[in-house]
Amino acid sequence: MQIAILLYDRFTALDAVGPYEILARTPGAETVFVAERAEAVRNDNRGSLGLVADRTLGEVRRPDIVVVPGGPGQTGQMDNPALLDWLREADTATTWTTSVCTGSLLLAAAGLLDGRRATSHWLALDALRGLGARPTGERVVIDGKYVTAAGVSSGIDMGLTLLGRIAGDERAQAVQLLTEYDPQPPYDAGSPGKAPAHLVEELRAAGRFLRAERP
Amino acid sequence: MQIAILLYDRFTALDAVGPYEILARTPGAETVFVAERAEAVRNDNRGSLGLVADRTLGEVRRPDIVVVPGGPGQTGQMDNPALLDWLREADTATTWTTSVCTGSLLLAAAGLLDGRRATSHWLALDALRGLGARPTGERVVIDGKYVTAAGVSSGIDMGLTLLGRIAGDERAQAVQLLTEYDPQPPYDAGSPGKAPAHLVEELRAAGRFLRAERP
Repeated sequence: MQIAILLYDRFTALDAVGPYEILARTPGAETVFVAERAEAVRNDNRGSLGLVADRTLGEVRRPDIVVVPGGPGQTGQMDNPALLDWLREADTATTWTTSVCTGSLLLAAAGLLDGRRATSHWLALDALRGLGARPTGERVVIDGKYVTAAGVSSGIDMGLTLLGRIAGDERAQAVQLLTEYDPQPPYDAGSPGKAPAHLVEELRAAGRFLRAERP
Repeated sequence: MQIAILLYDRFTALDAVGPYEILARTPGAETVFVAERAEAVRNDNRGSLGLVADRTLGEVRRPDIVVVPGGPGQTGQMDNPALLDWLREADTATTWTTSVCTGSLLLAAAGLLDGRRATSHWLALDALRGLGARPTGERVVIDGKYVTAAGVSSGIDMGLTLLGRIAGDERAQAVQLLTEYDPQPPYDAGSPGKAPAHLVEELRAAGRFLRAERP
C-alpha cells in the first residue's frame, strides 16, 4: 500500500505531519512525500520549515491513499493544472482520497468533491461550498472514499479514524497509545463555537481573503 | 526571540512539528531547525520523512528556547558529546529548555534535569528516573524553566502551555483556534491507564529496550 502526501509551497506543516505520523504506521504501508519537484518544500511560516519531497508527481501515479494538506499556499495552486491533473489521475487509483484543512479546496477545485459532504478549516467552509461541496460542521467527514478533516490539528483525528478503517480498531488504538494521543489542551478555544467571540471575529476579519478567493 | 528545534537521525516527526506549529506563531519569534550538520535529517519511520536542518549546532549558540524531540534515534545520541555539549551550552542562554517524548532523556543525559520534576513517553519514565529526574504522570511538566512533555502528540499541548506563558492566554487561545485544536480522537486509548490492558502489555514488551538502555 502506497500513501502519497502532497506538498506545495507554503503548506501548513502540521496538516501534513499529523496524519503522516499516524498513517505511516499502517502495516505494510510505504509513505512518500510528493511535489512538483523532488526537493525540500517550504512551509507557510516564512519558510522556516522545509520538508523533503522525495518523489515528483510523475513518479507517483497510482497511490492507494492521497493526503492533501492545507495552508495559505493552497490559494496559489487552485489553477495549477499540474497539481489538479495529478489529483484527478491519482484519484482514479486510490482507495482513499483525503485532505486536511484547506486541502479540501484543492480536492474540490479538481472536481472531486462535487455534491459530497466534506469539511475544511472553519474559515474556509464558505469557500468549500462555493466549489460545489456540502460543508458540514464535523471534524472528520467521510463520504465514500473521500475523507476530509477540519483545520490543521484535525489531521491527527482523521489519521486515526482512517487507520481504524484500514487496519482495525485495535491497531488504531495501539498507534494512539504509542503516540500518547490523550489530548489535554490548556484552553478550550479550539473551535469557533468555543473560543472567545472577539477572537473568532478577529480571525474572521484576517481570513476574509479565503472567501474572496472563491472562483 | 530565537526558538531552536533540535533534529537528529531517527527523531519522531510529530515530536518536533507539533510544538513547532504552535511556537512558531509566537510574536516576534524566529524558529530554526538545528542539527550537527545543516542537511535534511531523516525520521524514525524508515527515513520516509526528511526535515531540513537549516543551521548547524555551532551556528545557534544562544537560543531563547530549545525544543528537543524524542524518537528511537535518541538512544544513539545519549553519549554524543557534540549534542550534549550543545544542550548544556544553549541551556545557559535559554529562557525555556523543553522536550517532547524521549527528548527528556537527552536533557537528563546532559545533566539538566537532576532532581527536577519531568516527564517523557510513558514507556520511558523508568529510564528518566534512572537518569536523575523525578518523573510525574502529568502530560506537561514545568519545573523552573524546564518544560517536558509526554509522548509524541503531547508536544502540541506543551506548545500551547508555553505560548500562554510567553505571549499570554489570549494569544495562545487564538493559535488554538487558528490550528483548530479541538481534539476528537475516535478512540480513548491514548494513555496506558485508558488503553486496553493487552495493548499496554504488548507495547511494554516491545519497548523493553528503553529500560535496558539506562546507563
